[in-house]
Amino acid sequence: MKNPLVAPELREHLAENNIEALKEFCGSTHPGVIAEMLSALEIPEIWQVLSHLEPDLRAEIFSHLDVDVQVEMAHLLRRRELASLVSDMPPDDRVDLLKRIPEDQREALLPAIAQAEREDIRKLSSYPEGTAGAVMTSDYATLSPHLTAEEAIAKLRHEAPDKETIYYAYVVDDQRRLIGFISLKDLILAWPKTKVDDMMHRDVISAHVTDDQEDAALKIQKYDLIALPVVNGNDTLVGIITYDDAIDIFSQEHTEDMEKLMAISGSHEAASYVHTSAWVHFKNRSGWILILALLGLVSGYIVQHFEGLLLQVALLATFMPMLADTGGNTGSQSATLVVRALAVNEITPRDTLTVLVKESKVALLLGLLLALFAFARVFLFYEGSVTRPTHSPTLIGLAVATALCLQVLTSTLIGALLPLGAAKLKFDPAVVASPALTTIVDITGLLIFFATTKIMLGV
Amino acid sequence: MKNPLVAPELREHLAENNIEALKEFCGSTHPGVIAEMLSALEIPEIWQVLSHLEPDLRAEIFSHLDVDVQVEMAHLLRRRELASLVSDMPPDDRVDLLKRIPEDQREALLPAIAQAEREDIRKLSSYPEGTAGAVMTSDYATLSPHLTAEEAIAKLRHEAPDKETIYYAYVVDDQRRLIGFISLKDLILAWPKTKVDDMMHRDVISAHVTDDQEDAALKIQKYDLIALPVVNGNDTLVGIITYDDAIDIFSQEHTEDMEKLMAISGSHEAASYVHTSAWVHFKNRSGWILILALLGLVSGYIVQHFEGLLLQVALLATFMPMLADTGGNTGSQSATLVVRALAVNEITPRDTLTVLVKESKVALLLGLLLALFAFARVFLFYEGSVTRPTHSPTLIGLAVATALCLQVLTSTLIGALLPLGAAKLKFDPAVVASPALTTIVDITGLLIFFATTKIMLGV
Repeated sequence: MKNPLVAPELREHLAENNIEALKEFCGSTHPGVIAEMLSALEIPEIWQVLSHLEPDLRAEIFSHLDVDVQVEMAHLLRRRELASLVSDMPPDDRVDLLKRIPEDQREALLPAIAQAEREDIRKLSSYPEGTAGAVMTSDYATLSPHLTAEEAIAKLRHEAPDKETIYYAYVVDDQRRLIGFISLKDLILAWPKTKVDDMMHRDVISAHVTDDQEDAALKIQKYDLIALPVVNGNDTLVGIITYDDAIDIFSQEHTEDMEKLMAISGSHEAASYVHTSAWVHFKNRSGWILILALLGLVSGYIVQHFEGLLLQVALLATFMPMLADTGGNTGSQSATLVVRALAVNEITPRDTLTVLVKESKVALLLGLLLALFAFARVFLFYEGSVTRPTHSPTLIGLAVATALCLQVLTSTLIGALLPLGAAKLKFDPAVVASPALTTIVDITGLLIFFATTKIMLGV
Repeated sequence: MKNPLVAPELREHLAENNIEALKEFCGSTHPGVIAEMLSALEIPEIWQVLSHLEPDLRAEIFSHLDVDVQVEMAHLLRRRELASLVSDMPPDDRVDLLKRIPEDQREALLPAIAQAEREDIRKLSSYPEGTAGAVMTSDYATLSPHLTAEEAIAKLRHEAPDKETIYYAYVVDDQRRLIGFISLKDLILAWPKTKVDDMMHRDVISAHVTDDQEDAALKIQKYDLIALPVVNGNDTLVGIITYDDAIDIFSQEHTEDMEKLMAISGSHEAASYVHTSAWVHFKNRSGWILILALLGLVSGYIVQHFEGLLLQVALLATFMPMLADTGGNTGSQSATLVVRALAVNEITPRDTLTVLVKESKVALLLGLLLALFAFARVFLFYEGSVTRPTHSPTLIGLAVATALCLQVLTSTLIGALLPLGAAKLKFDPAVVASPALTTIVDITGLLIFFATTKIMLGV
């Protein structure tokens, strides 16, 4: 993804080796913007720019780079350079990078990092992927309840350069147990001599280290928080998750939901399409496709079982694709709506009855509409059939319409019930991917179609 | 969605008419938590609680309620009550509510609202849905460049209670043109006598009122902003979008993407499944389903055209469901990956060649795997067919395998090309919904299948 539109200014300074101009340019622009411009350069060029900057700014810009670029760059740097860079990175970004570099490089790097940072890395890496503990950062500001507003502001001012946010500060007791929080806005509005204890919010909303990262992000969304404190089993404050982490979590979940819906396995990172090799894409996609093709054997057997019926009324074959598609489409629609409603906590498995009633109504309306259409369609195809049907178009039309209506009804209900069942059994409802559903309702659809037409046409 | 687990405390206070306890409870808990508890009560009960609170707190809790609940409640209130409530709401939430109540009620309400708020409502409602202008709020803090840090903090402290955020303040010139921004953290860290002009960031990242709301939200994500300023054509500052609005925009886009992927039309609000009537669900879902059923006529004609071939080699019919499903599945997978990569700006239509190369490789691997499977399958079904085929299983197997491999290749490429084409033509790539794609590759698949088998079997 080398973008030819690099900021010409940056490239010019680099070509002329104009270090002063380069430093000034990087100091006056948002680190995220610089990181974006740098991404257009080759890895050694990026380091050439970064090496001239102050360690803090260098680490900040580096943290804004894609983690893939970070990993590539880590290979190029000397141990000491990398150790100093890593030490200056925000704790959560640092752990993300260290998890991605080869183990021997990581082992070689750790001794070059200061004791305190090493301890912090060890703690943050110890939580399993996907938990609140794994996404939190340890750069948060704490206050003692005995401080005055004035003293609290002085403490925050002093600590500000090292903290991810000073807009929320967490009040902890002597055992570092979380007992309240206060915003910088509260402190600024308060009478300078007021005690933190008298003005802090005691109804602090927090997450536990082992909570699902998405649940933590949903709390940040629901309560419009800038940061959410994370505690361990003893109510001890161990980290915070900031709103920008929450946005990244939602973005990752968004990619994951869409990919799962299409039965794609793998890591579901956002923005990894281009970086992922064709072979890994193949591995992520082929698993379910093959399982579904195996399941397709069942449809094959059903068709073969009713071959006699098809030979007698060849017209029926022309309805097979529509029947399968319509079942897959209506089922996937209801499944998608239910999966999403479950994801945003709008419904739980306890609402199954509400969902079934609603879906039955919708399915009945859809079924009747499509049955009417299928009935008309029989007349359209009747004359053109090779084997002149032995039944009247009206009778065939009624049989096909009945089958289609039943198919829409069952597909819609199966589509709604599968994710609810998965949620009930504590599985991710999104595992009921659309392709799997399509294959299932293909099987039920063929059974319904052949059984209905066989009975109604008396073949 | 009446939840039986209401905070018992709240209900108890209400039953005992213990107003003092009620007020204290509501004052000590996060407004979002109270709103959540209140949602479990009936609408008149909610108002009973709110009416006892201070206007500011009342408006804050009310703003946290579902907009559907807000609308229902608006119907119950007297004009004066509603006007005072609306006046105290944050400007962006207020406009969202007013857009949802019936026009005559809105017209009756406006004269009871103060001139300044009325003007603000008129301005904020004038931007089309989905633009940055429609989601921004007008409660932002501005500073003049001539102030000192000390004076700036004093001004922010004074205005804090009325502003959505004081953590970012925007620096404007005499014509209210946006010339920079400064964070409260910067101000607190600065020497008190430093001029805002000397310390503000001039590289301010902003959005234009007519920008897509998703692009604005992506800027907030990319640059980890707490708020993004919104300007009009003259660079005049007219509003800000805060990080919590960005999170809500992402949540709405997430629902929209998943629903579009399943060809569901409508408003795509998050968390509206239960509130939407079965009739509206039917209308949102039936449009595409019917269009696709009509497109299914084409598949019908193709099957009818090849009825002779099917009658001669009935075995081929047993492969039709698998062929259609596999095409739909592989095509939907590549379409989903490309739609998502486009959405997060990882690729643009200019990367079409990169995508095609990658997808061709993946499709070839998938095609070969599935062709092998299809070949084996012919032997499994060969003996059971009613009409003893006139060709050897090896020949039929080769024909079916070739057809399937071609089908996987075309479906995958069509799946990747359609969203890229849509993006190129400035349409939303997600319009290439999975059901539409399934129907299209059904048609191409049947053509490939019958043409390949007809030629290879020489029927």
